[in-house]
Amino acid sequence: MRITALAGGVGAARFLRGLRRAAPDADITVIGNTADDITLHGLHVSPDLDTVMYTLGGGIDEQQGWGRADETHSVAEELAAYGAHPLWFTLGDRDIATHLVRTQMLAAGYPLSAVTEALCDRWQPGVRLLPMSDDRVETHVVIPDDDGQTRAVHFQEWWVRMRAAVPAERIVLAGIDAATPAPGVLDAVADADVVLLPPSNPVVSIGPILAVAGVRDAVAAARAPVVGLSPIIGDAPVRGMADAVLRTIGVEVSPAGVAGLFADLLDGWLVDSTDEAYVAAVEEAGVRCRAVPLWMRDVEAAAAMAAAALDLAAAVRGART
Amino acid sequence: MRITALAGGVGAARFLRGLRRAAPDADITVIGNTADDITLHGLHVSPDLDTVMYTLGGGIDEQQGWGRADETHSVAEELAAYGAHPLWFTLGDRDIATHLVRTQMLAAGYPLSAVTEALCDRWQPGVRLLPMSDDRVETHVVIPDDDGQTRAVHFQEWWVRMRAAVPAERIVLAGIDAATPAPGVLDAVADADVVLLPPSNPVVSIGPILAVAGVRDAVAAARAPVVGLSPIIGDAPVRGMADAVLRTIGVEVSPAGVAGLFADLLDGWLVDSTDEAYVAAVEEAGVRCRAVPLWMRDVEAAAAMAAAALDLAAAVRGART
Repeated sequence: MRITALAGGVGAARFLRGLRRAAPDADITVIGNTADDITLHGLHVSPDLDTVMYTLGGGIDEQQGWGRADETHSVAEELAAYGAHPLWFTLGDRDIATHLVRTQMLAAGYPLSAVTEALCDRWQPGVRLLPMSDDRVETHVVIPDDDGQTRAVHFQEWWVRMRAAVPAERIVLAGIDAATPAPGVLDAVADADVVLLPPSNPVVSIGPILAVAGVRDAVAAARAPVVGLSPIIGDAPVRGMADAVLRTIGVEVSPAGVAGLFADLLDGWLVDSTDEAYVAAVEEAGVRCRAVPLWMRDVEAAAAMAAAALDLAAAVRGART
Repeated sequence: MRITALAGGVGAARFLRGLRRAAPDADITVIGNTADDITLHGLHVSPDLDTVMYTLGGGIDEQQGWGRADETHSVAEELAAYGAHPLWFTLGDRDIATHLVRTQMLAAGYPLSAVTEALCDRWQPGVRLLPMSDDRVETHVVIPDDDGQTRAVHFQEWWVRMRAAVPAERIVLAGIDAATPAPGVLDAVADADVVLLPPSNPVVSIGPILAVAGVRDAVAAARAPVVGLSPIIGDAPVRGMADAVLRTIGVEVSPAGVAGLFADLLDGWLVDSTDEAYVAAVEEAGVRCRAVPLWMRDVEAAAAMAAAALDLAAAVRGART
């Protein structure tokens, strides 16, 4: 079975670890968000790709959900002593090695997809990890400045430094118009037996991937069932601050609100067991919906969620034939 | 008193620490060798500048003589796990922060002299540290290859990886013809009250500095006495493998041999107490010579050497007037 998943960071990575357990023989392709990539201290950092790679490769800091296990912070201490900035984005020493390899390969002319493949040679994540695009796309957040005007900051600055507490007026995907899908992305969608949308941030993780030229159309046209998992339980995100970006784009912070964002794509949608109340509304919009436990407490819980998503995909497929 | 010293790495750095103690009120300018700079993992590494900066700034690994105290090696471990190369040049984590700052500033268009000044803002070495040039110069070593031909390798590869054990046929300063002195270099030589040649490698440390356009002429024309310290005691280098490079250029491995290399520049030359036998030969070549202890066991020993060098400079100056 060929499974293709669109992925953000922590939530997607943990879900994918469950998926690998739920479908050990599946051929899994992961299309990763790169719109929150950022250049720090001259290094090209790809937070979402790395979170997926480290999590599936056994190198993740389990507690944090991002960054490396057994991490040290000598470089960051020294950068602070030099007065270098920014320092609000923590780069651990082990993590920096990844960015050094990536930055050097990019400077040598390799596309990000080739770099990602080379990095995965070491980590053996058990999935094929593709960046959404080899072109640079950056999510910028437009916020009010002190003079009653607005200014745009990199998504990471808004998310990490400002903890998404400053109201975002607009979210801009800089570079998206010129971005084309990385090699293999469109085929992975077209050839899949199941397409999954893990419980990632719908606006700044799944959104940029779908915004790359041709990707949303490919998902809409996929012969495979498209099944997603709500990143919202009740009226709050499972993790992170997805509510802030949903409000920015005027979408209700609910499992049904997020389903509505993807209504043209979805065949199936999973909401949490406590959100049974939303099932009818989602089904009325033409999307098969089930309520199952969506708290990823551990790998077993993530595997059960993945199994439920695959079950729903099978049910959708069965109903078609 | 204005003192200007030409400097290589460990030997010069330790001597300069002694000089600062011997002449606490002096205004010291250090012109550092940058011909053994090397790009590693995309980072611009300036080994000699950093050794001087860390030693005088209190951040050096005293045991090694180079690199940072309390160093960690997480990045290097990870680079090895990625199969990155080369790995024969050890980059510690704290040290890497220096290279990140340098590399990023160079990429932003700052010349190496401005970068060095910025780095020294933190370290406060108590001297003005200038790179010999803002232009890239690289010492290459021509060695025999397996096919009876020759090939050129970066000096660091020959020195660090091959431990200078492969006979060098030739030493080439790539880029030297286009290199001009960094801002302040020629003035520091012309305006000095004393010019010192610390016990650095005469061929690959002092040699490249003198080879930058105009520097050797400036030292020869300096109104100040020029005093050097022999890096050779008996027939062996005090530190490192200077004998290997002296043989390559056909110079006798002795305190007199090295003095001969600089005969057109020197007013005074210090040899070790055990090398009294060479004093007459050096003086016959027109250079005032004294024998004093030249083993830099500790800062006190280095300070005594520096005081002896300044004494000799004063004696030369006295004899002139």
